[in-house]
Amino acid sequence: MTGLANFLNINELSNDKLIELLNTAYAFRDGKQVHLKRPVFAANLFFENSTRTHSSFQMAQKRLGIQLIDVNPSTSSVTKGESLSDTVKTLQAIGVDIAVIRHSQRGWYEPLVADDNISTALVNGGDGNGQHPSQSLLDLMTIHDEFNHFEGLKVGIIGDLAHSRVARSNAEILKRLGAEVFFSGPKDWYPADFAEFGEHVAIDELLPQLDVVMLLRVQLERLDHQAVETFTATEYHTQYGLTDELAKTLKPTAILMHPAPVNRGIEISSDLVEAPQSRIFKQMQNGVYARMAILEQILNARNLLED
Amino acid sequence: MTGLANFLNINELSNDKLIELLNTAYAFRDGKQVHLKRPVFAANLFFENSTRTHSSFQMAQKRLGIQLIDVNPSTSSVTKGESLSDTVKTLQAIGVDIAVIRHSQRGWYEPLVADDNISTALVNGGDGNGQHPSQSLLDLMTIHDEFNHFEGLKVGIIGDLAHSRVARSNAEILKRLGAEVFFSGPKDWYPADFAEFGEHVAIDELLPQLDVVMLLRVQLERLDHQAVETFTATEYHTQYGLTDELAKTLKPTAILMHPAPVNRGIEISSDLVEAPQSRIFKQMQNGVYARMAILEQILNARNLLED
Amino acid sequence: MTGLANFLNINELSNDKLIELLNTAYAFRDGKQVHLKRPVFAANLFFENSTRTHSSFQMAQKRLGIQLIDVNPSTSSVTKGESLSDTVKTLQAIGVDIAVIRHSQRGWYEPLVADDNISTALVNGGDGNGQHPSQSLLDLMTIHDEFNHFEGLKVGIIGDLAHSRVARSNAEILKRLGAEVFFSGPKDWYPADFAEFGEHVAIDELLPQLDVVMLLRVQLERLDHQAVETFTATEYHTQYGLTDELAKTLKPTAILMHPAPVNRGIEISSDLVEAPQSRIFKQMQNGVYARMAILEQILNARNLLED
Repeated sequence: MTGLANFLNINELSNDKLIELLNTAYAFRDGKQVHLKRPVFAANLFFENSTRTHSSFQMAQKRLGIQLIDVNPSTSSVTKGESLSDTVKTLQAIGVDIAVIRHSQRGWYEPLVADDNISTALVNGGDGNGQHPSQSLLDLMTIHDEFNHFEGLKVGIIGDLAHSRVARSNAEILKRLGAEVFFSGPKDWYPADFAEFGEHVAIDELLPQLDVVMLLRVQLERLDHQAVETFTATEYHTQYGLTDELAKTLKPTAILMHPAPVNRGIEISSDLVEAPQSRIFKQMQNGVYARMAILEQILNARNLLED
Repeated sequence: MTGLANFLNINELSNDKLIELLNTAYAFRDGKQVHLKRPVFAANLFFENSTRTHSSFQMAQKRLGIQLIDVNPSTSSVTKGESLSDTVKTLQAIGVDIAVIRHSQRGWYEPLVADDNISTALVNGGDGNGQHPSQSLLDLMTIHDEFNHFEGLKVGIIGDLAHSRVARSNAEILKRLGAEVFFSGPKDWYPADFAEFGEHVAIDELLPQLDVVMLLRVQLERLDHQAVETFTATEYHTQYGLTDELAKTLKPTAILMHPAPVNRGIEISSDLVEAPQSRIFKQMQNGVYARMAILEQILNARNLLED
Repeated sequence: MTGLANFLNINELSNDKLIELLNTAYAFRDGKQVHLKRPVFAANLFFENSTRTHSSFQMAQKRLGIQLIDVNPSTSSVTKGESLSDTVKTLQAIGVDIAVIRHSQRGWYEPLVADDNISTALVNGGDGNGQHPSQSLLDLMTIHDEFNHFEGLKVGIIGDLAHSRVARSNAEILKRLGAEVFFSGPKDWYPADFAEFGEHVAIDELLPQLDVVMLLRVQLERLDHQAVETFTATEYHTQYGLTDELAKTLKPTAILMHPAPVNRGIEISSDLVEAPQSRIFKQMQNGVYARMAILEQILNARNLLED
C-alpha cells in the first residue's frame, strides 16, 4: 500500500482505493494499532466554525499518536493578511507534517498543490461549497456498514443541495459505486447540473423507495436571499423535511443520515434524530475511524509508519 | 470505592463522600499516581471566561494522563445554534469520556442528566449563578488543611452573595459539616433565604470572631443596576472590604480566602493578597489536587483505572 | 552549564553565553535529546497575534517533552481586568513551570521579575516595540550558520526601524559581536539614537556592499499617522523595498532575511522570498532549535534535566 500524498478530493479516488480506505477504517474500529517511526506533528486550521470535524480529526490524530500544534486562525498572522500558502509554508518550516484545513475558498488547495515549495501533507476539512471529503468517506463507511455493498442501493439526498459541501460529491461517488441517486427538497435548490447524477422527486413520493435517506442541513446562514421561493422553518419542515408522519412510510430497513449539526424540527423531526433507524451518531463515531484511515494513508505515503 | 458517575452539585454528596474526596486530594498532593486502563479523553467546554478553573482542570487532567480534545465554544457549532445537549452527544460519539462544562445557564446539566442518550461523564465547571462545585471542594480542602476539622469553625462569607456561585453551596455544606456561618457585605446583596445558613453581620463586628474569612469577588459585570444601594470601588473597599486596618483585628490563626480573580483594593487590600494569613494562592494549588480527586472518582465509576 | 533563570532581553547575555546558545541550538538541529526529571508544564500567553512565534515555541516545547497548559488570553480572566502579574501567579500556583509571554506592553516582564512571589520562568515572546529575543537568537543562528562568524560582516537592517521589535537589539548585538551595521528605509523611520549602531544609507547604495540583508515587515497597522512622509505600498516597494532589479546588485554570497510574515511586493519582491539567496524559511526552521536551546537553558537552571 503506497498511501496518498494528500487527501483533497474524494472523486479522484478509484473504487479500489475507496474500498481500501473503508477497510482500513473498519480495522481501526476493530482495534488496529499503528506505530510512528518518529514524532509526527499536525496542525488543524479551521477558518470556518466546526465542532464535529475539528474534534473528530483531533481524536483521530491523538489515537494515532500524532502530536498537535495549535494554530487558531482567528489569532494568527492570517489576520495580518498573510496568505494561506505562506501560513502553510511557515508551519512546514517549523516541522508540521500534516495540515488539515477548512477554508471558505472553494479549491483552496489548488494553488498550494501547484506550489513546489509546499511538501506538508494537505487534508481538506471542507472547501467552501466545494467538497468535504472526510465527511463523504464516513458517509460511505456508514452505508457500507449497513448494507455491505453500494450496487443497487437507492439513496435520496434531500435539502439544501446547492450550498452543500457533500451533496454533489456524494452523488457522483455513490453513482460510480453502483447506487441509484435521487434528490429532493425545494426545487429552487436543485442545481441544473445535478440531473446527471439523479432526478428530483417530491419527498413523499421518494421516501418509501429509499434504502438511505441523506438529509442535509438547512444552512440558514448561507441561504440565497435572491431565491424565488422562501419559507419559514416550519414551512420547510412540512413541505421538505422528514416529519414523523413521513417517517412511517420508510422501508423498515432504511437508514437516516445527516452530517450534523442537525436543525431539529426543520430538516428532520427532533424525535427521529435518535430513532432506531437513525445513523446520525453512528456517522460521527465512524468519522473518527474514517479520518484515522485517511491519516494512515498519508503516514504511509511519507514512510512514517513502522512496518 | 465506587466513584461518582458525574460531578455536578456538591450539596448532594454525603459527609463521608466529601471526606473521601478530600483525602484523595491530599493523596494526590503527596504524590499518589494512577494508571489508565486505556486512552481516556476529556473535553473542556468553557462558555464563560476562566483562566483559573480551565487551566486547573487541564493540569489535573494532564497529571492523570487524560488526553484533551480542544473544543472552543466561540468557534464551534454552538455558534450555529446547536444545543448543549447535541454538542455533548457529538463529543460522546467521537469518543470523549468526560466533559467539563462551564455555562451561563443555571442547572445546564439537568436536561443532559435526564437524557438517556448521554453517557459521557459531566463535570460542572460552574453553572450561571448556581454552583461551582470544584471550587467548593478546594475551599473545603483549604480549610480542612488548616484546621483538620470543620466542627465549630466560624466562617464569614463576605461580598456579592447574590451573584456568587460559591456562597450558597459553601454556606450550606459548611453548616452541614458543623461550622458556624456568617455573612457580610452590602445588606442589599444578602438574599432573604440565606438566613437559614447564617446571619448578616457588619464586617468590623464580624472579623475579630472569624477563623476563616471567605471574600467574594465583586463581579462588577454582574451587578444589578436596579440595586437600591450603589457605591464606587473605593466606597466598597472602605465600607465592606478587608482593609489593612480591619485586618489588624483578625485572630492570629485566622486565614483569608478568595476564589480569585481578586479585585485588589476593592474586596481586599492589595497587600493582604500575599500576606502570611492569605491562603489565596494555596487555594489555587489545592484546586489541581481537588480536581484530580474529582476526576479519579469518575474514572473509578467507569472502571477506567488499573487496580 | 548553569542555565538562565529567565529569557527576557538578549542584550544582557554575554558573547560567550550567546555562542553557547547557538551551539546548543545546532546540537538540537543535529538530533540532541534531553530527558526531563519530572513532568514539566509550560503556558504560552500571546496577548498579540502570532502564528510563527507561537507555533514555533509549541514545537520546541513538544520536542523537549514539555506539556502545555492552554491559556487563551482572549477568553481568560485577563478580560475581567486581572493583571498580568496575577495571571502569572495563578499559573504558577497551578504548577506551570515556564510562561512564554507576548504582550503589547514594552518591558512587561520588569514588574514580574521584581516580584518575589513569582518564581515561574519567564520567556519574552515579544514586548511591545521593545524586544523579540528569541527572534534575535534565531537571526544570529541563521547568520552564523552561513558565515561561521560575525566579525567584519556587513549587515543592513532595512525598513520600519522605529516600530520593529528586532531592529535595535539586533543592531546592538551584531555590533557587539563585531559586525558592521547599516540602516535603510524611509529616513523618517530612522530613530535618532540608532546612529550609535550604524549610519543610514539609501538602499541602492547600500545593497551591493552587504553580506546580510535583514528586511523588516512594514507593520501597516502600527504606522504613525503623524509621519511627515507617507506613501502607498507600491511607492514603498519602489523607493525602499528589495525589488527584483535591486536584487541583481547583491553580492553572490549575500543572504536575505526577514522575520515574517512577509508583505510580498512591499518590503521584498514576491519572487525573492523563495529565491536561492533567501534564508526566510531557514530562519523559521532555525527558530524551533533556537527556542529549544532557550528552554533547555531554563530547564537546566531549574535542575529539571536528567544528566
